[in-house]
Amino acid sequence: MTSIRADIETHREAYLARLKDLIRQPSISSQGTGVAETCTKLAGLLEDAGFQVERVPTDGAAVILARMAGDAPQSVLFYNHYDVQPVDPLELWDSPPFEPAQRDGKLYGRGVADNKGDIVARLCAIESTLRTRGRLPVNLVWAIEGEEEIGSLHLHQFVAARQDVLRNVAGCVWEAGGKNARERFEIALGCKGLLYVELVARGADRDLHSALAAIAPSPVWRLLWALAGLKGPDGQVCVPGFLDDVRPISPAQHAALAGWEYPEEENRTLMGLSAFLDDLTGPALKERLIFGPTCNIDGFHAGYGGPGTKTVLPNEARAKLDFRLVPDQRPEHIVECVRAHLDATGFEDVEIAWWEGEAPAAGDPDHPFVQTAARVAGQLYGHPPTLLPMMAGTGPVHLLCDQFDVPVVTAGVGYADSRAHAPNENIRLTDFFEGIEYIAALIEALGENEP
Amino acid sequence: MTSIRADIETHREAYLARLKDLIRQPSISSQGTGVAETCTKLAGLLEDAGFQVERVPTDGAAVILARMAGDAPQSVLFYNHYDVQPVDPLELWDSPPFEPAQRDGKLYGRGVADNKGDIVARLCAIESTLRTRGRLPVNLVWAIEGEEEIGSLHLHQFVAARQDVLRNVAGCVWEAGGKNARERFEIALGCKGLLYVELVARGADRDLHSALAAIAPSPVWRLLWALAGLKGPDGQVCVPGFLDDVRPISPAQHAALAGWEYPEEENRTLMGLSAFLDDLTGPALKERLIFGPTCNIDGFHAGYGGPGTKTVLPNEARAKLDFRLVPDQRPEHIVECVRAHLDATGFEDVEIAWWEGEAPAAGDPDHPFVQTAARVAGQLYGHPPTLLPMMAGTGPVHLLCDQFDVPVVTAGVGYADSRAHAPNENIRLTDFFEGIEYIAALIEALGENEP
Repeated sequence: MTSIRADIETHREAYLARLKDLIRQPSISSQGTGVAETCTKLAGLLEDAGFQVERVPTDGAAVILARMAGDAPQSVLFYNHYDVQPVDPLELWDSPPFEPAQRDGKLYGRGVADNKGDIVARLCAIESTLRTRGRLPVNLVWAIEGEEEIGSLHLHQFVAARQDVLRNVAGCVWEAGGKNARERFEIALGCKGLLYVELVARGADRDLHSALAAIAPSPVWRLLWALAGLKGPDGQVCVPGFLDDVRPISPAQHAALAGWEYPEEENRTLMGLSAFLDDLTGPALKERLIFGPTCNIDGFHAGYGGPGTKTVLPNEARAKLDFRLVPDQRPEHIVECVRAHLDATGFEDVEIAWWEGEAPAAGDPDHPFVQTAARVAGQLYGHPPTLLPMMAGTGPVHLLCDQFDVPVVTAGVGYADSRAHAPNENIRLTDFFEGIEYIAALIEALGENEP
Repeated sequence: MTSIRADIETHREAYLARLKDLIRQPSISSQGTGVAETCTKLAGLLEDAGFQVERVPTDGAAVILARMAGDAPQSVLFYNHYDVQPVDPLELWDSPPFEPAQRDGKLYGRGVADNKGDIVARLCAIESTLRTRGRLPVNLVWAIEGEEEIGSLHLHQFVAARQDVLRNVAGCVWEAGGKNARERFEIALGCKGLLYVELVARGADRDLHSALAAIAPSPVWRLLWALAGLKGPDGQVCVPGFLDDVRPISPAQHAALAGWEYPEEENRTLMGLSAFLDDLTGPALKERLIFGPTCNIDGFHAGYGGPGTKTVLPNEARAKLDFRLVPDQRPEHIVECVRAHLDATGFEDVEIAWWEGEAPAAGDPDHPFVQTAARVAGQLYGHPPTLLPMMAGTGPVHLLCDQFDVPVVTAGVGYADSRAHAPNENIRLTDFFEGIEYIAALIEALGENEP
């Protein structure tokens, strides 16, 4: 790797300039700002690097599919996204979000951590590899979508169109991740799934004077009671069928969790909590965070919310809920269970207005692809990385990889204070250059494995 | 009464002009618009009519206290308010709210029904009486406050300062009321009380990514469970002590309810309901509306309420509740019961951020003062009026009258489609002139009673 490291060192300024250039191009998918321009720019960079590039159309943003042949017969998939989060609140940024700013060894800008830094690190790793050894050690397939920040709304169309490619990869290097609050490199192997529903209860055809609460039904109480029937004060989801498909945690996953140093006190203090839920701590806390399905109320809105008093019987109440799912729960099944439970408990009148979902995917820490990534990271970073069988968050791992039995490892250039989705998003320059080296070492190692 | 009726007929245009003039003067207490100007204007009108007028200061709007001596030794109290509701939504008015407009035998304008029409009708009745018989038949004490539409916030200061006057009246002619959907004149004898509370639950010190719902407590669930513990799906308030002080309905009150033709189908259709709460109908419906205490959620707000999805664990949830109270429930006692119940059921963390209250007051249909009002109304309107022992709504009846054992009867110039608090508020001109005649006849009759 000495020659790769030297090549990266030589092109340090050029690589950094390339990242800054990509940051300058806004690509806010939720607001439709600069998404197509970013797609064009990125496709050009990939073509310049020697990739064969397609822009696969969907009903939303196009998905870039870039391919390059390598020495080994097997193929490796990279997954990234070229869209970013909105920038507000703008006033909390110390420098403009789309003007990359270097301060104290860090680079600031919207998307620098999530995940244009990852994209450019991978691109630079490929260029240094090509310059150093002439040809990639392994076939590369790179999928870069433009709607990750809005729930990968149309990625399923790309998957349906190009599953010939997706079925034939040995593993996937996922976006995101990096070092945790204790400077340990973390590799996640999957994501929780999600069921997001909006529930609505309706009453009279307009708001009524609250004196009429004596004789007119209240949709606020109806929705509240319906929700209280989904999860009680003990925190247990009471929907029959909810846990039916939960797969036991494997011994390898248990072992991985045991090896994970979760920065418990740091995170508790950061959130301003006196205790975690149910006074969880230690192994139980980690297991709940990674393998516990949830039922969360994202929003509940009904009636008057201004200052002081208004005496009103609202005519509508709405709640948004998300259920984080674990293998092998499926959103389309859970929403049926919720509907059936509402009906069975006398809440036929509470509507499920709409729902969206993603299936969960947890990885196997013992998988050879995962073990290769862990070994390479251990060599580069000087300590064994943490292997997280699943992230607590959600992403399209099942859709893109898990349904085809393709293992996944994250590889990111972020750190504990990267502030993804928040003002002053940033990465450390050392993490960026180490990240380039890690990707180069990883594809070298993956080329050495038998298919 | 013939001479009174003739005098009213003679001054028809002048009386109508006086009402229009008062409508033109905005007096929106919740927005602080024109309240002091209206107080000055009204005090001038009362002085011109021959009243001795004081403006009793409070920490809010001044209360007008106007007095005029009459033939009989006893005194009668009039209660009104000179403030009005806001006008929005302005676009739904067919003519500007503060430009009185006469159309199809009706007069439109903000406050014309609630309750400047009542005030001017009473003033005109007094003027016609003075012109016709030289002197009032009874001593009159008239209290007109400027904060009724914001919960009579400072009326207690007036009551504390002038209870010498309030204790020595034989009865009170209250604001509001008129004819119902079946053209029957309704006289109410009291008001429900009210406890209004805001409950707050707090979580982390900022909103969290909803993936953290696995390990971080949710204030939305906490507040929801706390509320579900106050009232369950059977509609019964489960707070120990809530019903302890409820006084049985008296035989006279029962009889009054039985004589009330509640326009059940008309009102159900107007609200757009397929059925009333608990499928109530007939006598049970009337009893619940007039004598049933309530626990209503005026508003519940937490987290995301915009379009689509946002995956967030909100760090705060707020709910506003009103309890309508019946004799002898007291808001200061009920709020203690609620606090004790929250504590006893494990919701010490749910805060009662603030509360306000008014005590209830129900009247006795057999009281001689009430019987006089009913007899006079029956003679004037050609049918026995409905006597409602209590309104379903709330007002300061207990504060101003009931605590001093002073009986109350409403006397208003409204009708079923008067749209108080709403766009196109209006009264019918015939109701206005009949209302003048009713007040003149009522004070004449009250002067005939022994003290």
